[in-house]
Amino acid sequence: MLLLTTDILSQVITPRPLLSHKGNFGRVLAIGGSLNFGGAIIMASQAAVYAGAGLVSCATNRANLSALHARCPEVMFLDYHDQKQTLSAIQQNDVIIIGPGLDLDDFGFELLSLVLTYAKEDCPVIIDGSAITLLSQHPFLLKKLKNKNVIFTPHQMEWQRLAQIPINQQEQATNLIARQKLEATVVLKKFQTEIYHPNNQIHQLSIGGPYMATGGMGDTLTGILAAFLAQFHNQDSIAVIDAAVYFHSYVARELSQDNYVTLPSIICQTIPTIMRRFAN
Amino acid sequence: MLLLTTDILSQVITPRPLLSHKGNFGRVLAIGGSLNFGGAIIMASQAAVYAGAGLVSCATNRANLSALHARCPEVMFLDYHDQKQTLSAIQQNDVIIIGPGLDLDDFGFELLSLVLTYAKEDCPVIIDGSAITLLSQHPFLLKKLKNKNVIFTPHQMEWQRLAQIPINQQEQATNLIARQKLEATVVLKKFQTEIYHPNNQIHQLSIGGPYMATGGMGDTLTGILAAFLAQFHNQDSIAVIDAAVYFHSYVARELSQDNYVTLPSIICQTIPTIMRRFAN
Amino acid sequence: MLLLTTDILSQVITPRPLLSHKGNFGRVLAIGGSLNFGGAIIMASQAAVYAGAGLVSCATNRANLSALHARCPEVMFLDYHDQKQTLSAIQQNDVIIIGPGLDLDDFGFELLSLVLTYAKEDCPVIIDGSAITLLSQHPFLLKKLKNKNVIFTPHQMEWQRLAQIPINQQEQATNLIARQKLEATVVLKKFQTEIYHPNNQIHQLSIGGPYMATGGMGDTLTGILAAFLAQFHNQDSIAVIDAAVYFHSYVARELSQDNYVTLPSIICQTIPTIMRRFAN
Amino acid sequence: MLLLTTDILSQVITPRPLLSHKGNFGRVLAIGGSLNFGGAIIMASQAAVYAGAGLVSCATNRANLSALHARCPEVMFLDYHDQKQTLSAIQQNDVIIIGPGLDLDDFGFELLSLVLTYAKEDCPVIIDGSAITLLSQHPFLLKKLKNKNVIFTPHQMEWQRLAQIPINQQEQATNLIARQKLEATVVLKKFQTEIYHPNNQIHQLSIGGPYMATGGMGDTLTGILAAFLAQFHNQDSIAVIDAAVYFHSYVARELSQDNYVTLPSIICQTIPTIMRRFAN
Repeated sequence: MLLLTTDILSQVITPRPLLSHKGNFGRVLAIGGSLNFGGAIIMASQAAVYAGAGLVSCATNRANLSALHARCPEVMFLDYHDQKQTLSAIQQNDVIIIGPGLDLDDFGFELLSLVLTYAKEDCPVIIDGSAITLLSQHPFLLKKLKNKNVIFTPHQMEWQRLAQIPINQQEQATNLIARQKLEATVVLKKFQTEIYHPNNQIHQLSIGGPYMATGGMGDTLTGILAAFLAQFHNQDSIAVIDAAVYFHSYVARELSQDNYVTLPSIICQTIPTIMRRFAN
Repeated sequence: MLLLTTDILSQVITPRPLLSHKGNFGRVLAIGGSLNFGGAIIMASQAAVYAGAGLVSCATNRANLSALHARCPEVMFLDYHDQKQTLSAIQQNDVIIIGPGLDLDDFGFELLSLVLTYAKEDCPVIIDGSAITLLSQHPFLLKKLKNKNVIFTPHQMEWQRLAQIPINQQEQATNLIARQKLEATVVLKKFQTEIYHPNNQIHQLSIGGPYMATGGMGDTLTGILAAFLAQFHNQDSIAVIDAAVYFHSYVARELSQDNYVTLPSIICQTIPTIMRRFAN
Repeated sequence: MLLLTTDILSQVITPRPLLSHKGNFGRVLAIGGSLNFGGAIIMASQAAVYAGAGLVSCATNRANLSALHARCPEVMFLDYHDQKQTLSAIQQNDVIIIGPGLDLDDFGFELLSLVLTYAKEDCPVIIDGSAITLLSQHPFLLKKLKNKNVIFTPHQMEWQRLAQIPINQQEQATNLIARQKLEATVVLKKFQTEIYHPNNQIHQLSIGGPYMATGGMGDTLTGILAAFLAQFHNQDSIAVIDAAVYFHSYVARELSQDNYVTLPSIICQTIPTIMRRFAN
Repeated sequence: MLLLTTDILSQVITPRPLLSHKGNFGRVLAIGGSLNFGGAIIMASQAAVYAGAGLVSCATNRANLSALHARCPEVMFLDYHDQKQTLSAIQQNDVIIIGPGLDLDDFGFELLSLVLTYAKEDCPVIIDGSAITLLSQHPFLLKKLKNKNVIFTPHQMEWQRLAQIPINQQEQATNLIARQKLEATVVLKKFQTEIYHPNNQIHQLSIGGPYMATGGMGDTLTGILAAFLAQFHNQDSIAVIDAAVYFHSYVARELSQDNYVTLPSIICQTIPTIMRRFAN
């Protein structure tokens, strides 16, 4: 087990090559946000923009369009009920987030199936929130993970559902075996978040804290993770995932010096200035 | 009668335990916001998020969805006309606000009845604004307060309606008797707000001022109150209510040094930094 | 002709009485904002809140609801097509703005007629933008001004239409005569804006400048004017109108030190801090 | 080939004449923004306001209204499906932007045809994004450019489509010939953006960088370009275009000192203060 340090940020967040354009920093697609949970996918999408993805699209319920653009006009919109457009977006994007604010119903399941079936083979797919629970409820979908590049971002209860390990038995050795079965990366969100990598390494955060305990925090993480994978695609993906997870808590820790709670939407706005520190 | 001081903030706003997650800081449900008065429930919900509730849901008119998420994507949305969802939310949340921007009609009455019938027994229910007036109009509902943990937040005219005490006769002794009949906490909003506690103590503010005299100020108070009750649930609830009411005016007083009026939405944004001062 | 100075701000913007509540600072109703011009009435309403009105309602097209509350949740909403609600609001508010973003059609005319017929006798009615043009097109409405307390806020072209004085003949003596016929206050917006008062005094600004030449600037003025009349209702209304008009340009001049253009929405946000300077 | 320097900003961004009003700073019409790509035209419109245009209208999909006014109430709205209103706006505005977030369909083509047919003869028409691609797909439209004052703002792939020059052959000499055929100004967006002027001069930026590589960056440029052409219409248009393009990258470069990415919406908000530096 390796404890991550700020070095991972200096290593990954590097100056951009001069000769580059938005295409070089990747296309991110965020799928989720039902009528009830639209804020989640809005936060994920906005975080992806603020963390440096080249182009970000949000496939969500039509009801979320106005708030999405009121907060972040840089994001492109897709009505996720338009299957043709959604399928085409799944096939063309470089990194996909699925789950923030998705409903636990047949339609959510359909979207998840589409992603696991049609995403480009090397496309990192970040499976979060309800999408994790849907996968737990439809375990035959797990076989679709084999040839995919999946990153799960469960909190402990979602990990219990997915890996069938009760929270009080979620020891690193046990989690490691569950990860191997999934053939995926697992970011287990908890006090001192653990990252289980495909090479069976376990990396852990020593930062982050209870000032982050607000709904929406994980949605923001998925956006940062997607943006880092999209723009730093030439780097070692283990380091990139480590850096994204570390960075999310790093921003929160910075904000916690002046804020009792560090809200996801405030973290989001702070991303560009804090990333700047690490690319000189 | 006890005059509250800043000590109440240091006492209640304490560092969070390291091993904690959003579930530990409570689920708040805010119900209200008709087509005409959506801003009220948006402000209440946002204040609950900014004051540290773990999860906040807003049950309101569908028309208010876009503005809710444009201002605060951390809040989850419920269409309050969807009775099944609303009932389920009432049964599952840890603190409920009802009243900001609610219409004075049969539907408002129905929602209030649902809350008083189905809220968890120990669930603090903050009854504000129109919900107070509705209760005054339907006094048979008062018997439902017996086994509930209700906090009323009337201004003086609403208190006149509820307690049937004309404003110019609202002396502490008289108010105390009315509170006893209600078997509830009463936060009487006025110049030097008074708090009538279930143990018959009367606590009073010496801070706050006319810079707070803007529509929406009380909505923001309900959000802070809900968040404090949700996250500081292990503390003495009398102190927690005192702290929330005091804190609201404390933030306003801070802002008043540089602002002629201290608008509710500006108070809201300032909450996390001022709470931070009291948790070192 | 009197040239106004900063003294007018110190005179009018005074500390609020300690024993006061939002009712003491007046109810403002802003009517306007068609599908095409919603931003205008949103800016007028928001400026009224930020300049200290106790309660602000906005009667506008339903299409403008989300943006109104996304920008300023303190404002209450009315669908101006709901004639019953609109009429009731006209009868109950203390200051009325009509015109920002109103369409030049039969419906706009109807709303203007309602206001001029049903506003409380002493209710200041600020007639701006399209409402001025509508009045020019329906001169028989002018007789309704007799017993009303009307403030016109035309720019020079609107004044040409209303007073039938070509722009190049808008001399103070000529304008004064036109004002007398109208039996109203006229705020003639131009380089060095002139205010024609009911007592036939002419007061003039020496501040303001071309950094203010952006669409929406006048809408913000109506909001400030309404808020000043609402909250400073115990003061001499000539001084209050002078102060509101002066203050609007004063804020812009302050901002112009750091901004090439001083946008109406930025002016709005700056109001509370600049008002604070004058109430010590 | 001339390398532009900061001198171009001091030359063009000059103090405004004291005796002026919003009409003097021009009317800008921005056309675009389908259901999917509304953010683009919102950013273009807002940038035009913040960069000093006197009046800005946005002709877009009705779905974009709420977010438009939530972000920038100064902009007037047109439903671009209302052909009568749209045509009238095309005929009356002083500068037109067409393309940001326009769909590549028959309706987009119709709008482009309307603009090229009915815009005032001396009206600068900024053709961006999808509108460039539409023109490439319907080359017979090119003949309509003859008597128009068109500025193209392609990135390299759009230039390849329009000029039929593969990206790796986009040398200045080749581009120059293509520009001559188009009888238009071409702003070729790339590392060190090149501006091909009607007098066959080629001006080039040495500023700007990969921190600008985010979707929406070009939309913001069109807004600044339109505002500069609208308000500085008495100046040499070659200098004005140079200044707008330079200014856009100049703001980004300033922000890049503290931000890893310089998002279009953040650039927009920074415009007025940075313009101020050049007009003393």
